[in-house]
Amino acid sequence: MKNTTKFAVLGGGSWATAIVKMLTENVSTVNWYMRNTDAIAHIKEHSHNPNYISAVEFNVDQLELTSDINTAISNADVVIFAIPSAFLVKELEKLTVSLEGKIIFSAIKGIVPETGLIVGEHFNQTYNVPLNNIGVIAGPCHAEEVALERLSYLTIACADEKKAKLVAKNLSSDYIKTKTSDDIIGTEYAAVLKNIYAIAAGMAHGLGYGDNFQSVLMSNAIREMKRFIKRVHHMKRNINNSAYLGDLLVTGYSVFSRNRMFGNMIGKGYTVKSAMMEMSMVAEGYYATKSAHLLNEKHTKKSKTPIIDAVYAILYDGKNPKKVFNNLTEKLD
Amino acid sequence: MKNTTKFAVLGGGSWATAIVKMLTENVSTVNWYMRNTDAIAHIKEHSHNPNYISAVEFNVDQLELTSDINTAISNADVVIFAIPSAFLVKELEKLTVSLEGKIIFSAIKGIVPETGLIVGEHFNQTYNVPLNNIGVIAGPCHAEEVALERLSYLTIACADEKKAKLVAKNLSSDYIKTKTSDDIIGTEYAAVLKNIYAIAAGMAHGLGYGDNFQSVLMSNAIREMKRFIKRVHHMKRNINNSAYLGDLLVTGYSVFSRNRMFGNMIGKGYTVKSAMMEMSMVAEGYYATKSAHLLNEKHTKKSKTPIIDAVYAILYDGKNPKKVFNNLTEKLD
Repeated sequence: MKNTTKFAVLGGGSWATAIVKMLTENVSTVNWYMRNTDAIAHIKEHSHNPNYISAVEFNVDQLELTSDINTAISNADVVIFAIPSAFLVKELEKLTVSLEGKIIFSAIKGIVPETGLIVGEHFNQTYNVPLNNIGVIAGPCHAEEVALERLSYLTIACADEKKAKLVAKNLSSDYIKTKTSDDIIGTEYAAVLKNIYAIAAGMAHGLGYGDNFQSVLMSNAIREMKRFIKRVHHMKRNINNSAYLGDLLVTGYSVFSRNRMFGNMIGKGYTVKSAMMEMSMVAEGYYATKSAHLLNEKHTKKSKTPIIDAVYAILYDGKNPKKVFNNLTEKLD
Repeated sequence: MKNTTKFAVLGGGSWATAIVKMLTENVSTVNWYMRNTDAIAHIKEHSHNPNYISAVEFNVDQLELTSDINTAISNADVVIFAIPSAFLVKELEKLTVSLEGKIIFSAIKGIVPETGLIVGEHFNQTYNVPLNNIGVIAGPCHAEEVALERLSYLTIACADEKKAKLVAKNLSSDYIKTKTSDDIIGTEYAAVLKNIYAIAAGMAHGLGYGDNFQSVLMSNAIREMKRFIKRVHHMKRNINNSAYLGDLLVTGYSVFSRNRMFGNMIGKGYTVKSAMMEMSMVAEGYYATKSAHLLNEKHTKKSKTPIIDAVYAILYDGKNPKKVFNNLTEKLD
């Protein structure tokens, strides 16, 4: 059977580039939007993204590159957003084409700062995309290992199982195994929360805590994540599945995670502002911390989230990391 | 209130040394048995164990060192075994004193090769020690970090809560937090099984699998551990507590774990025999794999344990690691 589904990937970063690579294993052409016209020119000439996972060689004939988001979307049935959440609203302001009938998948793993919503909810509430047309591509998956074609597992979540399977099929290959899930809300929250826990892991490391403590922190983090997600979206799920626990671990234990690095600098004594400047970017978990905190405050019966509370107190209330963590250690077990 | 409980620690390795250190924070004297008389002489003269975590300085006045296991046991109310499981039976053959009335705690984390039992069961079945007098000291805890006084959490399990609390109190300090549990069987099996999963993690690394796969392996391992322990000893437990998940993570992610190292060598192409010779010791997980396999076979309704099965096939059936893991990847998700 000929594979006729048309895909667009929006974004020029490492995760966008990795997803394009996965798709090119299965479909003849991928519509790929990025803002950076220099990068587009470079890819066309040199067959690789100059800025991210540049070891990946593309067959340029398979790429329909464009710096016009509307062109990419209008050419596609399935639109995969892999833009940092901080820029999503600005990019969506450029839309002139309708999203009606499009299947929208988020590979963003962040909270939309302007609305405090996860990406799926943002499309649903702001663009009236029906939940049945919204999906999530979840890890555990570092783009760098996709570039190396190291075996990785993805979870493709969509309330409409057929659409989940369609996207899963087109991302699968020798080195990518996929499973589907109907838990779009939980999967996306897990992907968001894990960045907060990666910041916490980095802070702990920066403060001098060791591997024994890190394992206790992760063990408490997955229990906290379970409580948090259950409060937000109650359904039957096994929190130890790869999309939740696996994703937490690959980020929390990665020394390359930007969130962990950000936390590490703060643990070592950088101010929040100077850590951000030093990294010349904002870690996704920074916004996620605020949104998770606000969301939890909103509930009359809050879930117990000592780790999120600790990260929030340090990042937003200017509390002393050493004291906050000292206090946190009493609440873990 | 004066702390009058008398403790004996049996063993001269790093974990035994770490436990003695923890106890000396609380009690005036610790009875410490080890076979190696040279090591005893060294500790007496230089205040540290020459062979393991030698950075730990003891106040020698607090140590009642002996190379006679019977002396150590007869002087104590609580006897903590921290001898490698491979040597336990041989050590116990030396016993002339009775264990009656003694509280026996295992810090061994292994299966007794001769009987295929976990240590608590071995004392219960072979020495008629009542289960109420048997306990387990569980991690997640590398001895090396105890030496550095890095914050670590222990779980002290005993069916008799008072005894668990007694031992917990005497191990607690500024850098050791303890919690108690009544799940001696589950806690001990978790400590045993995690070594098998650490071997699997090492094999995966040796075979060239990356961090994405490692997180999927750990996510599957904790689900497999839950099924296995539930079959062996059904009771209410949260498998994500530190004694189970935390202990799995600190071992599975540690590049210093002997089990992980052993697996790594086999993944890289060493035979089982040459890996053992190269390491000049046998990794605990090697025996655990066989025992876990046999125990699972024994049940008419086996629990699904693809990771243990894979490690067993490689270690005991001489199967090709690359092929076995290739096959295993199909069973994980």
